[in-house]
Amino acid sequence: MLAIAQFGAGRIGAIHAGNVAANARARLAHIVDVNREAAEALARRVGATVATAEAALADPAVGAVIIASSTDTHADLIIRAAGAGKAIFCEKPIDLALARVDAALAAVQTAGVPLMVGFNRRFDPDFSLLHAAIAAGRIGRVEQVVITSRDPGPPPLDYIRVSGGQLRDMTIHDFDMARWLLGEEPVEVFAYGAALVDAAIGAAGDTDSLMLLLKTASGRMAHINNCRRASYGYDQRIEVFGSEGRLIAGNRLESTVELADARGQTAARPMHFFLERYAEAYRIELDAFIDAVTEARPVPVDGSDGRQALLLADCAARALAEGRPVRIPPR
Amino acid sequence: MLAIAQFGAGRIGAIHAGNVAANARARLAHIVDVNREAAEALARRVGATVATAEAALADPAVGAVIIASSTDTHADLIIRAAGAGKAIFCEKPIDLALARVDAALAAVQTAGVPLMVGFNRRFDPDFSLLHAAIAAGRIGRVEQVVITSRDPGPPPLDYIRVSGGQLRDMTIHDFDMARWLLGEEPVEVFAYGAALVDAAIGAAGDTDSLMLLLKTASGRMAHINNCRRASYGYDQRIEVFGSEGRLIAGNRLESTVELADARGQTAARPMHFFLERYAEAYRIELDAFIDAVTEARPVPVDGSDGRQALLLADCAARALAEGRPVRIPPR
Amino acid sequence: MLAIAQFGAGRIGAIHAGNVAANARARLAHIVDVNREAAEALARRVGATVATAEAALADPAVGAVIIASSTDTHADLIIRAAGAGKAIFCEKPIDLALARVDAALAAVQTAGVPLMVGFNRRFDPDFSLLHAAIAAGRIGRVEQVVITSRDPGPPPLDYIRVSGGQLRDMTIHDFDMARWLLGEEPVEVFAYGAALVDAAIGAAGDTDSLMLLLKTASGRMAHINNCRRASYGYDQRIEVFGSEGRLIAGNRLESTVELADARGQTAARPMHFFLERYAEAYRIELDAFIDAVTEARPVPVDGSDGRQALLLADCAARALAEGRPVRIPPR
Amino acid sequence: MLAIAQFGAGRIGAIHAGNVAANARARLAHIVDVNREAAEALARRVGATVATAEAALADPAVGAVIIASSTDTHADLIIRAAGAGKAIFCEKPIDLALARVDAALAAVQTAGVPLMVGFNRRFDPDFSLLHAAIAAGRIGRVEQVVITSRDPGPPPLDYIRVSGGQLRDMTIHDFDMARWLLGEEPVEVFAYGAALVDAAIGAAGDTDSLMLLLKTASGRMAHINNCRRASYGYDQRIEVFGSEGRLIAGNRLESTVELADARGQTAARPMHFFLERYAEAYRIELDAFIDAVTEARPVPVDGSDGRQALLLADCAARALAEGRPVRIPPR
Repeated sequence: MLAIAQFGAGRIGAIHAGNVAANARARLAHIVDVNREAAEALARRVGATVATAEAALADPAVGAVIIASSTDTHADLIIRAAGAGKAIFCEKPIDLALARVDAALAAVQTAGVPLMVGFNRRFDPDFSLLHAAIAAGRIGRVEQVVITSRDPGPPPLDYIRVSGGQLRDMTIHDFDMARWLLGEEPVEVFAYGAALVDAAIGAAGDTDSLMLLLKTASGRMAHINNCRRASYGYDQRIEVFGSEGRLIAGNRLESTVELADARGQTAARPMHFFLERYAEAYRIELDAFIDAVTEARPVPVDGSDGRQALLLADCAARALAEGRPVRIPPR
Repeated sequence: MLAIAQFGAGRIGAIHAGNVAANARARLAHIVDVNREAAEALARRVGATVATAEAALADPAVGAVIIASSTDTHADLIIRAAGAGKAIFCEKPIDLALARVDAALAAVQTAGVPLMVGFNRRFDPDFSLLHAAIAAGRIGRVEQVVITSRDPGPPPLDYIRVSGGQLRDMTIHDFDMARWLLGEEPVEVFAYGAALVDAAIGAAGDTDSLMLLLKTASGRMAHINNCRRASYGYDQRIEVFGSEGRLIAGNRLESTVELADARGQTAARPMHFFLERYAEAYRIELDAFIDAVTEARPVPVDGSDGRQALLLADCAARALAEGRPVRIPPR
Repeated sequence: MLAIAQFGAGRIGAIHAGNVAANARARLAHIVDVNREAAEALARRVGATVATAEAALADPAVGAVIIASSTDTHADLIIRAAGAGKAIFCEKPIDLALARVDAALAAVQTAGVPLMVGFNRRFDPDFSLLHAAIAAGRIGRVEQVVITSRDPGPPPLDYIRVSGGQLRDMTIHDFDMARWLLGEEPVEVFAYGAALVDAAIGAAGDTDSLMLLLKTASGRMAHINNCRRASYGYDQRIEVFGSEGRLIAGNRLESTVELADARGQTAARPMHFFLERYAEAYRIELDAFIDAVTEARPVPVDGSDGRQALLLADCAARALAEGRPVRIPPR
Repeated sequence: MLAIAQFGAGRIGAIHAGNVAANARARLAHIVDVNREAAEALARRVGATVATAEAALADPAVGAVIIASSTDTHADLIIRAAGAGKAIFCEKPIDLALARVDAALAAVQTAGVPLMVGFNRRFDPDFSLLHAAIAAGRIGRVEQVVITSRDPGPPPLDYIRVSGGQLRDMTIHDFDMARWLLGEEPVEVFAYGAALVDAAIGAAGDTDSLMLLLKTASGRMAHINNCRRASYGYDQRIEVFGSEGRLIAGNRLESTVELADARGQTAARPMHFFLERYAEAYRIELDAFIDAVTEARPVPVDGSDGRQALLLADCAARALAEGRPVRIPPR
């Protein structure tokens, strides 16, 4: 049974800890968090002990770590965990600075440990079915990808200020999906963005509304649209158009109940919150990490995937700032 | 070109006349109606002359008649038109009394003229596609049929009093659909009914809400539900369940536009009115009549279909009155 | 924390035990099953001990029992558990014989213990939302209920022979839903049935295909259709039609992914298996039982609900056998 | 009654002529076409005479012209019709060269005659309902527009070579829709394009697959995707996202019939051909022209709309050729 030390006892940490607890092949040994109270509450809930980072990493029984602490601690923890020879699961993004991502990846490579990056959407049952249908040739050759990703409401301004910006914080998921579904690396990106939802977000130097285009060497194209606010809930749809068909993964609705009355036929809203919408994805994701480590197989999403999505975000940010398409440097 | 004399210049007469006018193989020669003004207006619109019944039937150029006058005139007009050797299209029902239907069918048989009965729904593109899919074996052997048929609002009480009752006026369409889709004659019928919409309808001795069951000799079953009022529009759906699949023909909506907002996702209502909902069905129906007469082929819905649907309505009325299932006499 | 003894370690027992284990207000103390191996495996999984019925009921720490053993043991276990003063959750049906149901209910009444019957569908999030929408007046006065309930495939003949027949085994759920949604007791039932799926089911004296009608004193109507086999999966839909609108709860699909290609637009199938389709319902149901017992509130579905659904099944069986509608005796 | 002379007796000409014939306020006086046979066949069908352009324009009874001839004749015919004082309906595009468009518009202005340009999609019932819902404030302030427009199959290469390219031939409709729905003029356009469907189209210097972005001065954004081939039919969808909601106009399907079987739930394909999909739009469009001319009111889509859509296409072509966003010159 894989013993795991987890860094971070916040919202996403609680999700991962619960999923470890439900996995028969793993157990949580230690919880590390600067917020002692949160660490204790979570540790109690999943039968772990509260520990310092040093103690957790020094524990020879620990085979893997989950890094779910604040983004600015990720790279450092990866380097230390790699140094301790632990398998690593790290929440996205690895870091907001490409140089620090590269330093972390170098440490991982030197140590020869597995590093999995938390792009949970790849594990969403609908999106993975869609990906499998492409792989099975159901739509022929992929030509166009359209990704719609809108949050129900913007995070607090305090969060936005340290988030790395909408492209690195929110669109990064969509960059990963676009790469995964295009089946070919994007070579160029273009972006329009504005603060249409909240002028204060604009004043903070960020956007809340985005439209992007990506293209690959063979001419495949992707469009991503984002908004920090959707009045009707969490809007997460993907369309992939190919030479022989089109796949669409729609929103999961809150219920199947429809009301017909004089105003029309009203169906439920999309599930409102990402933790609910992607609950299964988070569970399957962590199971996949535990399986890969336990069976010494490659992790399904690795450090280079984390780096590439950040690189796309960086290039898109430059495209947005400079008003021109930006080439993506080859890997 | 087939010259047609039409009896009846009311709402449904106007539909048929317009469809004849749009058919390149036929023309309207005469319009007959006790309401002289209505006859003249319609005749002017489609380039016909106003005539008496005698004159219209005596015109040797006339090859066919359309009977779209009030129900109590149908049987007599059929008998006279048959006597004059004309091909006959008659709106449903042939008559409200089975004996008079039989007299009319006997006259038709003696004269050897074609008689088509206006069960327009068989010609609705969705329902005929559904029927064709069954015939093509797409769902294996038919086992259960569920027909939902609800009007947007009840007709005037004056109409209800002479309509023959909900079963003969409204359900008769569904009886015809059930026979057509079951692929086997019903041998028994059972019915529940009540006046839930308007007590005045109950006071007039009629129902406005019905649920029926039919069964066939081999055990196939059908359910029909009816209501004289649906707050959300005209509800016309059919489900056919078979050994290898299920077919559903849904409502045609007023538009494809959907609004997502804080209340949910709202689609358009079903088309509200039968003349709009079944506009194509009426056109295709009349084209089929004109084609059959012109090419001397059998009409697709004949007098025995009209008789059998009325017989089912009669048996259902007895079932309702006596609170027991009623056997359908064999044809 | 409520200590629970569970009778039955089979498929449905495993579901309930898992749900108790996940509920913070309860724990499983004992598992009782004639199959010692199954009892031990389940006990190990949820941290309970294997016990005899006697020992489990004699344990003063035990506050409640879950009866998930074979149907023929239910009534006896209810009587013994009531005698021991335990709160009782019993899987449907209480018994296949009304007299034994009455004996069990009498014992419960004498003992003054709560008895909840496992009509899990009332706790399905979609169906309970639909029920809440009716209660909130969203469709005005209920007039018609249409329940479609088709299994993916028939159970083994050995099971069918001891099941009490399709009406008592399968339709009993729909009788409960019809009562719950009509908002008024049915006063009469009529039924058609046949063995269209498998002649061997007919030879065993049972049906596999059913269509039923129910009516209430005020004229409300319900239709239920059932089949033991649906090629496309588990078909569980409910429509409630009222004076001001219509509610439909549709099937939960295996995914939201749709493929458009030359053949059309293909969506996923309904979830295939009842344990998956109703997983949430089972969890919410048991949480409701535990909450009611813990807080000394009435259980949401009680013994009289279990009795009434069986009574409807009995009357429907008589209607089917005698080919006539059967009155439901007043409660 | 408005007498109309029509230039062009081809596919689209036949549509317009049929719509004039069905309009009670207008009649077709003359049909002009270099293909004498086509002109005669159409003239016979709608009761017009075949005439030369000179004769048609010299006929003082003629109040309006419909220009549905090949694109290279449009500007010249507009100038001549304006000179003759006729109201003008011209199929899109006015011309492929902006300078000639400007010359035509100048002639129209000098003559003071109305000029309506055939952007039929504005008159599609779904799209006009969507536009009306925006105008009624149903989604608050418009922020993002997503237009999907894919043809079932590419036109012949011979046509493509003289079409002005995909942007001027196909996307021009979407540029008009984007302007109309954004409620604000685009100020910049960016485009990716490739020949993914047919290399011969690429060899002819054109694209068959496009993804574009537009932005307005206030930061609103639009995405257009196009393809010359969709295996599943004619894909015409519009999504408009606003501060308080989202509107989607979906495809009109060939039927409402859905088949559920072991493979899933299969709905019909989108209507396959633009003449069928937009039949109502063409009729409503021409009725609007006839009404405007008859009642001396402004036409709903005028020459400047035609010019602006072409200008967007020109700018997009430059963006595509130069790999950079291109500013739209102010009107």
